[in-house]
Amino acid sequence: MIQKPTKEELLAARKRLEKYIHKTPIFESTAINQLTEAQLFFKAENLQKMGAFKMRGAMNATLQLSKEQQEKGIATHSSGNFAQAMALSAKLLNIPAWAVMPSNAPIVKKAAVASYGAQIIECEPTLEAREKALHKVVEENKCTPLHPYNAIDVIVGNSTATQELLEQVGFLDTIISPVGGGGLISGTALAVHYLSPKTVVIGAEPKLADDAYRSLQTGIIQPPLPPMTIADGLRTSLGNITFHFIQNYVSEIQLAEESEIINAMKLIWERMKIIVEPSSAITLAIILKNKAFFKGKRIGLILSGGNVDLSNLPF
Amino acid sequence: MIQKPTKEELLAARKRLEKYIHKTPIFESTAINQLTEAQLFFKAENLQKMGAFKMRGAMNATLQLSKEQQEKGIATHSSGNFAQAMALSAKLLNIPAWAVMPSNAPIVKKAAVASYGAQIIECEPTLEAREKALHKVVEENKCTPLHPYNAIDVIVGNSTATQELLEQVGFLDTIISPVGGGGLISGTALAVHYLSPKTVVIGAEPKLADDAYRSLQTGIIQPPLPPMTIADGLRTSLGNITFHFIQNYVSEIQLAEESEIINAMKLIWERMKIIVEPSSAITLAIILKNKAFFKGKRIGLILSGGNVDLSNLPF
Repeated sequence: MIQKPTKEELLAARKRLEKYIHKTPIFESTAINQLTEAQLFFKAENLQKMGAFKMRGAMNATLQLSKEQQEKGIATHSSGNFAQAMALSAKLLNIPAWAVMPSNAPIVKKAAVASYGAQIIECEPTLEAREKALHKVVEENKCTPLHPYNAIDVIVGNSTATQELLEQVGFLDTIISPVGGGGLISGTALAVHYLSPKTVVIGAEPKLADDAYRSLQTGIIQPPLPPMTIADGLRTSLGNITFHFIQNYVSEIQLAEESEIINAMKLIWERMKIIVEPSSAITLAIILKNKAFFKGKRIGLILSGGNVDLSNLPF
Repeated sequence: MIQKPTKEELLAARKRLEKYIHKTPIFESTAINQLTEAQLFFKAENLQKMGAFKMRGAMNATLQLSKEQQEKGIATHSSGNFAQAMALSAKLLNIPAWAVMPSNAPIVKKAAVASYGAQIIECEPTLEAREKALHKVVEENKCTPLHPYNAIDVIVGNSTATQELLEQVGFLDTIISPVGGGGLISGTALAVHYLSPKTVVIGAEPKLADDAYRSLQTGIIQPPLPPMTIADGLRTSLGNITFHFIQNYVSEIQLAEESEIINAMKLIWERMKIIVEPSSAITLAIILKNKAFFKGKRIGLILSGGNVDLSNLPF
């Protein structure tokens, strides 16, 4: 039985995080509004500390630990953004951190984790190897493992992005969040549930990683299948907690092709002059693909992050 | 004899432009501050309408025309940003516009000019051909030619970026502006002259286009020499008006190598998640190159624009 966090818990997280995170700005583009025939508000979590919304969940989960737990440190296994978020959270609180990262994680992400002072433990790029390595680190250091998405405190932390968005732009017909492990959209959906119940929450997922879409259809968590999508943040499968919130609070999941994701990414870079990951651009890809569905609406899009390898761009 | 605009004229331009341009945000980066050991405030004119500060000068010059002049339309010759700025200014006032563009101008810039509704007249990529084509357009349509930088109204319009910057961040020891034709730095220097006379204004110029640097040394306007810098916005030589203001109100010009410009550009993209042109990144390149000179200072950097061809990046 998964207990949903209360409205008060969501609001408390926002207060708790205030001095540790950026209140990110909203971007609008006349050109993109004309193209989509809708009014779009982009929540720029790519400008969040360490370049992604993950900072919110990681920081909230860390702040919710006891003083004693904090002093022993935190650990996670992650191929990228969450490891950075955990590392920076630990740095801000001056506590130790360990990041288990697969040997094939992008160099730019490893460098960022290291630059925040966390210890990196490399492992084979399999879930089994990652979990084993994390278990070992936790055993040895008596530190607390943080799950990147399948954890209430992380989800509640993530919800603060949508709390801000709703306050910044007023009523929205629709909010679109990308779906990877489901931590962001769970937070989005819970914030909407309490603060703007008439807003429709839609998940955006790559066709090449449509595991959440298939999970909703079958009622059972599905793994992503190869080949891998360019949206590297969205390759993860759901957890039991995030699946629960998606089943209950998300209206539907829509899918985008790889080329549609890349085109939307280029459009955001060109017209808005900000750097977003493919995992973020998918929200716009969904709108461009289903123009009639979104026409005339006021839509919030969560731009989840901006951590891309500039030496390896798809255009 | 070049008459300098008054303080009241600068302040009036800011008021005049308010409803036509964005008050662009200031970006800061903890990582870049640590690296430079200074406190940097980036004025994000890359997020300005049409993606560059040029919007300020073009719009101001257009608004200063008589109603009759406005109705007949405006024209310019430009390889890029100023043509876009003029086209958008005309669109906002619903008047006709003609842009003479060299046949080798980046496609992305031509497309943007066309998307704002201006007529494009292509010509050979020589100054002579451009001036001849512009003359013909002006003759035929009785429209008003706008100079991209060597014009008081354009310079005064450009000054509004620095007026905002000073208001947004308070006192600055130094402000660095890129130097192309000199329109931006002239505006910067005039704003500083009236509003913050203790602030030092430094120009940033590519070593490969050090014509302004050489002009200051020799006292005579020098042309840029081949090979061409990657900072395409800075390939222009000074005009008599901009040279005059640079001679009188700019402290010095510092030079950067091509590789230093590219490295600074990558650093801004990676750490700040915003897209800036090489011509903008040169301001940071100067600081990274002369760290001891800038150490401990509060420095404003004018990020002039973000119009790059994403299919042709230097990294």
